[in-house]
Amino acid sequence: MSQLVEYERRGAVAHLTLNAPGSLNALSDAMLAALKGRLEALAEESAVKAVVLKGAGKAFCAGHDLKEMQAARTAEDGGAGYFADLFARCSEVMQLIPALPQPVIAEVHGIATAAGCQLVASCDMAVAAEGTRFGVNGVNIGLFCSTPMVALTRNVPRKVAFEMLTTGEFIEAARAREVGLVNRVVPAAELSAEAARLAETVAAKLSVAVKIGKRAFYEQLPLTLAEAYDHTAAVMVENMLHRDTNEGICAFIEKRKPDWA
Amino acid sequence: MSQLVEYERRGAVAHLTLNAPGSLNALSDAMLAALKGRLEALAEESAVKAVVLKGAGKAFCAGHDLKEMQAARTAEDGGAGYFADLFARCSEVMQLIPALPQPVIAEVHGIATAAGCQLVASCDMAVAAEGTRFGVNGVNIGLFCSTPMVALTRNVPRKVAFEMLTTGEFIEAARAREVGLVNRVVPAAELSAEAARLAETVAAKLSVAVKIGKRAFYEQLPLTLAEAYDHTAAVMVENMLHRDTNEGICAFIEKRKPDWA
Amino acid sequence: MSQLVEYERRGAVAHLTLNAPGSLNALSDAMLAALKGRLEALAEESAVKAVVLKGAGKAFCAGHDLKEMQAARTAEDGGAGYFADLFARCSEVMQLIPALPQPVIAEVHGIATAAGCQLVASCDMAVAAEGTRFGVNGVNIGLFCSTPMVALTRNVPRKVAFEMLTTGEFIEAARAREVGLVNRVVPAAELSAEAARLAETVAAKLSVAVKIGKRAFYEQLPLTLAEAYDHTAAVMVENMLHRDTNEGICAFIEKRKPDWA
Repeated sequence: MSQLVEYERRGAVAHLTLNAPGSLNALSDAMLAALKGRLEALAEESAVKAVVLKGAGKAFCAGHDLKEMQAARTAEDGGAGYFADLFARCSEVMQLIPALPQPVIAEVHGIATAAGCQLVASCDMAVAAEGTRFGVNGVNIGLFCSTPMVALTRNVPRKVAFEMLTTGEFIEAARAREVGLVNRVVPAAELSAEAARLAETVAAKLSVAVKIGKRAFYEQLPLTLAEAYDHTAAVMVENMLHRDTNEGICAFIEKRKPDWA
Repeated sequence: MSQLVEYERRGAVAHLTLNAPGSLNALSDAMLAALKGRLEALAEESAVKAVVLKGAGKAFCAGHDLKEMQAARTAEDGGAGYFADLFARCSEVMQLIPALPQPVIAEVHGIATAAGCQLVASCDMAVAAEGTRFGVNGVNIGLFCSTPMVALTRNVPRKVAFEMLTTGEFIEAARAREVGLVNRVVPAAELSAEAARLAETVAAKLSVAVKIGKRAFYEQLPLTLAEAYDHTAAVMVENMLHRDTNEGICAFIEKRKPDWA
Repeated sequence: MSQLVEYERRGAVAHLTLNAPGSLNALSDAMLAALKGRLEALAEESAVKAVVLKGAGKAFCAGHDLKEMQAARTAEDGGAGYFADLFARCSEVMQLIPALPQPVIAEVHGIATAAGCQLVASCDMAVAAEGTRFGVNGVNIGLFCSTPMVALTRNVPRKVAFEMLTTGEFIEAARAREVGLVNRVVPAAELSAEAARLAETVAAKLSVAVKIGKRAFYEQLPLTLAEAYDHTAAVMVENMLHRDTNEGICAFIEKRKPDWA
């Protein structure tokens, strides 16, 4: 598989690294394909219990590959077909993350801009280095970040998102945590350790419970309260009937460690 | 009615106390039935204008009664029928709170975990003692908190909820306020007074207005902007036509106290 | 047009001023009509790229005109027809703001109460002076702020909104920023300059991109994730095909200023 997205397994955690530092890990056609390939493969890899996604070099990700996009304008349709395909592919990759059975943690440093900021917002959790800057700044070059907005507005309050989108201004990591875009902010020197620690914490849980729970998390969000309860009550029953859940609860009652498969 | 949920009236405020301190007020079958009974009775008690819900002993509520749940596994179906019924009953009780005419304030101390945290999230408002810890930590024993998640994700930002649910880690009261899970945090010694003060503030308002407003609050949340305005505009007209609203506005204009029935 | 809402153009920014300081800029029938007229005219004024909305005198806006409302009670129907019409007109004006092509920034000082607080919540962004107080305090006079609630609950966490609505208590500017009701808080002496600076920042962007983006912002909010991506992917293609977006991206790649029409 393409080394544009490096893959490293450490125990039950898969570490994915966007590896095009020369372009600040731009989401080129090749990068999107590589990321899609990695995510689809991870969906089948049951030994992986959590995923960390980071960027090589100076930044997490600076969004789309603008040169590649501009090159498409020479087509007969002025690029319309390519652009439609590109944004469909990019949106598909973003939606693969909540659809993945394993929790995905963004490990963010430097900058996360436009579709790079969307990638952070699309991850289930995010850890950022102090000083990291987040922006949906396409408006500065005349291209409003309309697709990144979908993920962003599902993370942060409405007026915060509107300001970022229309001013193109950055917010720093501490503010990003305050508004809900990232979970934790740590000194740069501790970033990788903290992201790994969070991933390992999640990976140590009963994976079938995490899998059931993550799926239910996103399924119930758009439902009404009554629908959401009907759905998750059924999910709880399914969860209760797993052998390892029985063992987990027994172990808790007996004050011992669970003997999970 | 069962003393598992104690009832005390102080003026227009009903104080409910979960009273099974030996089990950290676990939501056993009996406790759920008692709480349901109290809430349904309150719905008819028009002299009660606000409700405070607290826990006796060291904690607010530690969630489901795990021993009772495990006992159900001896049934022929492995407990499936019991679990389905249990989560339906629990979800029904949680939904009784927003459906109640009176505002319900959680008075939280010690811990509020799993369905206990869900109970806090389901209340209209919450006051917590400093040092109180909140968690949806079923994942630690292999049972993802899927039903608590419904209430939690309707209170706090998405990534915050996801982290709590998949790490099983606690958040403290100050953080709970920051993210929207509780309204106020006070020293433990002032907790009961503060919850009572908040309840009495609400109870002193025109109760028909609070009743109309609370119902509309939850009705309009899932609607589109246009639908929500159509609905609440009709609610405002209904509210305006109450005799006591007329009196309230007259009194305000005339700079005197309203003469409410 | 009525001078109840003053209009001043400074460059590409329109400054609207609610101008009934004697009534704390109450949203009387005449004020609502004047504001509606101004907003509808702005929708056609393509030279205006951003709007600032403020209040003359001691406060931003104190909500509806209670004396005018009470006068309607002398009608045969006790005011029912008038009230229905009033709340429909008010709701229409509130919805004109997100529907306007240009971003609208509330410049808030003094107090913003009831429908005045709704007006802040309805604006795309808000800047407040330190010490400004926000409330949805109709409950104090027996009229629950049900229509203001629609805008408020789409800005701030659920429990925060519930507390404001049922206690009638104010929150100060710093807390308003914390919970998402305003974007920026500055000393009173800098309020107008800060609101103007924010408006000018937005006005300097490519206006077709801002227009496309603002419309998509509100369109995608109520959609599911998949629907929102389908919709905004199409919006991105539309945006990419604008001549000035091509120029903006070229200029960025060539490290020069864009030559926008």
